[in-house]
Amino acid sequence: MTITKITDGHVTTPRGFVAGAVCAGMYAGGPKAGAFDLGVLFSERESVSAGLLTTNTVRSAPVYVNEKRFPAGRIRGVITNSGNANAPFGDAGIAEAEAMAALAARKLGVAEEDFAVCSTGITGVVLPLEKIEAGVPRIELSAQGGPDFARAIMTTDTVAKEVAVAVKDGDRVVYTLGGCCKGSGMIHPNMATMLAYVTTDAAVERELLQTLVRETADATFNMVTVDGDTSCSDTLLVMANGAAGGETIRAGTQQAQEFAEALLMLCTELSRKLAADGEGATHLITVEVSGAASRAEARNVAHTVALSSLVKTAVAGNDPNWGRILVAAGRSGSPVAPAKTSVTLQGVQLFECGVALEFDEEEVHEKMKRPEVVIGIDLGVGDAKATAWGCDLTVDYVHINADYRT
Amino acid sequence: MTITKITDGHVTTPRGFVAGAVCAGMYAGGPKAGAFDLGVLFSERESVSAGLLTTNTVRSAPVYVNEKRFPAGRIRGVITNSGNANAPFGDAGIAEAEAMAALAARKLGVAEEDFAVCSTGITGVVLPLEKIEAGVPRIELSAQGGPDFARAIMTTDTVAKEVAVAVKDGDRVVYTLGGCCKGSGMIHPNMATMLAYVTTDAAVERELLQTLVRETADATFNMVTVDGDTSCSDTLLVMANGAAGGETIRAGTQQAQEFAEALLMLCTELSRKLAADGEGATHLITVEVSGAASRAEARNVAHTVALSSLVKTAVAGNDPNWGRILVAAGRSGSPVAPAKTSVTLQGVQLFECGVALEFDEEEVHEKMKRPEVVIGIDLGVGDAKATAWGCDLTVDYVHINADYRT
Repeated sequence: MTITKITDGHVTTPRGFVAGAVCAGMYAGGPKAGAFDLGVLFSERESVSAGLLTTNTVRSAPVYVNEKRFPAGRIRGVITNSGNANAPFGDAGIAEAEAMAALAARKLGVAEEDFAVCSTGITGVVLPLEKIEAGVPRIELSAQGGPDFARAIMTTDTVAKEVAVAVKDGDRVVYTLGGCCKGSGMIHPNMATMLAYVTTDAAVERELLQTLVRETADATFNMVTVDGDTSCSDTLLVMANGAAGGETIRAGTQQAQEFAEALLMLCTELSRKLAADGEGATHLITVEVSGAASRAEARNVAHTVALSSLVKTAVAGNDPNWGRILVAAGRSGSPVAPAKTSVTLQGVQLFECGVALEFDEEEVHEKMKRPEVVIGIDLGVGDAKATAWGCDLTVDYVHINADYRT
Repeated sequence: MTITKITDGHVTTPRGFVAGAVCAGMYAGGPKAGAFDLGVLFSERESVSAGLLTTNTVRSAPVYVNEKRFPAGRIRGVITNSGNANAPFGDAGIAEAEAMAALAARKLGVAEEDFAVCSTGITGVVLPLEKIEAGVPRIELSAQGGPDFARAIMTTDTVAKEVAVAVKDGDRVVYTLGGCCKGSGMIHPNMATMLAYVTTDAAVERELLQTLVRETADATFNMVTVDGDTSCSDTLLVMANGAAGGETIRAGTQQAQEFAEALLMLCTELSRKLAADGEGATHLITVEVSGAASRAEARNVAHTVALSSLVKTAVAGNDPNWGRILVAAGRSGSPVAPAKTSVTLQGVQLFECGVALEFDEEEVHEKMKRPEVVIGIDLGVGDAKATAWGCDLTVDYVHINADYRT
């Protein structure tokens, strides 16, 4: 088996999935760039699903609805709007989220409990349900609708984020996976939200899917950080509908291993796109930690360095500032011994086992002008590894988030 | 007893303390603003001391030296330079830090072990010890030297931070406390550092002093956040020399309670000055959490909100964005129930027990233009309280930290 990226692939590339979007007028100031603000993604066949929701204890209304429906693992569609997060934090919002899911479920003739619902946008403003009621009938779903759906969920995102991969046996495509996501942009005036949807036409055992989704999210979406502010709406939904016609993939098999690899590849790609499109970002920052005593410590160090304002501003300035990297690692809570630690930037060794190396600062400065800056940290005490993704902190981040909403 | 602030008070306001500073040429680009870059603070009498050091596992050389000397609790002087953090992270740096402390101890005729040492400035560059050797003999110590010492430890700080308080019995001054600190500015090109020195001419039992310093730091310096990046050099040193002539203050007494109050007042004032002078800051942000189930949860929520990039940018824009405040509280890890939570901004109630209140947005926007923005969060589940201090995140923060060092 080989896993390859599909050119121009998207969330309805896998068979049996359809999607569509409209402009329902959710943005008070008129249509946003990209125009669409209400979308539906749907599997024409029954699906096995797995999902993860925000760990924030302040949660938008749709999260309460999804929380009840995700455990059954049979979600086959999701309706999502941008422009309003449906986060008035009360029962009225939950009733609106349920009504929104019901509109989509009725349109497609399936049980309400099999539909998920997400909203992203401003908080503190009641969701204008009448606009969604007027919008849903106008949504035309098709297998070509993935890109429109990906655009409908965008808020301050500057590009749609979508990808698909094919798992092949020789030249034959056995099954495919598709995905799209939004964030980590922040919608004026409120909050960053990560929404990610993954589809596959493979048939996957429910429990296996749920296990793999959790593991994969821990290595991908949960390792993305833009500003450390976890949204009240973060949602990941994975649907597997079996439309490719193969046998059901079961735990402990070679097929499960291959599916896990394909899912990891897809989610890694989506995570990189998320981080690269962080608000105001001019660089994707990839932090690769190795030589850690445990996976947890490696994750912790990678995450802390990717989140450090000092590292992020240094990258914005193309500044090969290994001191900030080392000190950020040191405050992670995981033990970091400088005498055993080495740091690379764009592949150039700057610090090795406690010693600051001489290097051509201008050369590394120039290399840091590339769109991706790779920071390598070897802790020198074990074999565990982890990678985190973030973005630089620029003046534009401040402008986007500080400018008074008028 | 009453506790009052002393006009123009400083770190050598308490009796028996002297200080002085010179320009030793520690800044490669020529003297910094304020000129002084090497200072000594000294008690002419033996002292009881207590100190706290950074929890970062990547530590500058002086921290290793102080770590050995602080436990004895008899530090009576400290030598500090700015312009170089002595953080090459190796044994050579430790030898230099020891040599630096020895220079000061010899000048003043006391044991080396009774002197502390701190350095703040760029990392990765060997400390030019010869400049310190040349500088120390030129330092003239006097009871008027506190302000010069406070200036010598400044890096990107825009103002010296110093304060003193008097504990009075009627009109009679029983004893005084003085203090100065620096940070949380970041020295080009490297890192933020908090250095704080507190003096008192009260006589205080050693164990009591150590207990009070830890408790006070937890409620003050440890509740200050500028960018979440803990320095490798953070140091708090408190020296009590008994020069006021009163009886030794012992644990469990009324006097101990009064001393604790005076120390808290002094350290609170220093902490507020630290936060207000955060890099690029235009507002001091004070986050007051009440109604928490425990002190730990209150601290956690206050700290998380003060650190939130979204809250910080909203304050920079004078934006009464209660949604960001609530969501930041929710991701703190402490349980936050929106239906029980209330939020105020500059004393105006914006959100009450799950309900977004109508308020005059323009009025609150105008009130947020004051130098201090006070965020109140009542969690509605208990009696515990905590306050954290931070500052807004502005374009200048990014400029200060992103501009490539040339």
